[in-house]
Amino acid sequence: MDVHRLEQQFQFILEIDKLKRVRRQTLLIDSSRRENAAEHSWHLAVMAVVLQEYAADPGLNLLRVIQMLLVHDIVEIDAGDTYCYDEAAAGSQGLREAKAADRLFSLLPAAQATEFHALWDEFEAAETPEACFARSLDRLQPVLNNYHTRGAVWRQNGIQSSQVIARNRMTADSAPDLWQYFNSIIQRAVSEGFLAK
Amino acid sequence: MDVHRLEQQFQFILEIDKLKRVRRQTLLIDSSRRENAAEHSWHLAVMAVVLQEYAADPGLNLLRVIQMLLVHDIVEIDAGDTYCYDEAAAGSQGLREAKAADRLFSLLPAAQATEFHALWDEFEAAETPEACFARSLDRLQPVLNNYHTRGAVWRQNGIQSSQVIARNRMTADSAPDLWQYFNSIIQRAVSEGFLAK
Repeated sequence: MDVHRLEQQFQFILEIDKLKRVRRQTLLIDSSRRENAAEHSWHLAVMAVVLQEYAADPGLNLLRVIQMLLVHDIVEIDAGDTYCYDEAAAGSQGLREAKAADRLFSLLPAAQATEFHALWDEFEAAETPEACFARSLDRLQPVLNNYHTRGAVWRQNGIQSSQVIARNRMTADSAPDLWQYFNSIIQRAVSEGFLAK
Repeated sequence: MDVHRLEQQFQFILEIDKLKRVRRQTLLIDSSRRENAAEHSWHLAVMAVVLQEYAADPGLNLLRVIQMLLVHDIVEIDAGDTYCYDEAAAGSQGLREAKAADRLFSLLPAAQATEFHALWDEFEAAETPEACFARSLDRLQPVLNNYHTRGAVWRQNGIQSSQVIARNRMTADSAPDLWQYFNSIIQRAVSEGFLAK
């Protein structure tokens, strides 16, 4: 047994415990508190299993999708959560997250660090069918939670339906049926006054 | 598009948001609060990716391991978290969790409900290499968090090292190197006064 290797791996496993303390804007569906990035990642991974049949690509590699979803937010341990409609913060987001990825994944043994970094890079690049499907889920889940909390976070931040549509329109390509369903949720949110037109 | 099917799937996705409010005994590594079952499940799924090389079975199906870890605690939405050293609560745990599994997974379309129930059954039966490896991780992670929080939860509950060893010894078969490493952590916990001998 290579104890040094195992200790590097557990250093990473211990470090990522901090993701449980990174708060997102999204509320839990009972509105009791804001969601953290670790439980959000779990929710997305289960969604991938449940909704895989809707991916446009019939040969989707589900394991790859899930692995990306499990690691996609780990950079927020250093970089913090950036609210998706905060244009000022978005400017520095790329650099902050790239630095975070370098530090956090390099806690792992070298070859494994490269594999984890590649998962994150693939998710960010949004080019493979797996990355596009994973990113769609990451954008749909807040719509779901926002709708079921009467748009509290949307209203608080003055978000308009055109912004939500622009952010989710990629799903029309990666999972057309899901996009159709969510488009109707967005329209209902507008008509129920949860989201500005 | 079968809207009824999609609505059943989203009913399940909404329902499992409640797992974020199920508290476990384990503390976060910074001791700031107790862990919830959703973020715990995420932590285990990442551990499976990082530690897969230590599984005794070289042909381990990692996707199956991860899927089991993602769903294994969902029953706690109805059944609550049962502390692993609470022998009184353990008596009714099986029945409570079986009822919960029936209700929760049957929110999904029938064939998918059967698939999810089968993942949970496989985890509980602890017979396949995938289930044994998944269960090992589920038992090791609290040891890690307990050790790094100076055994606060162990001491509060008067837990002895023989109990921790008995609960984790299965890892000697499913992942021998991990067991060797954790056995040394348990011994260190005893010598540092975090865990009673």
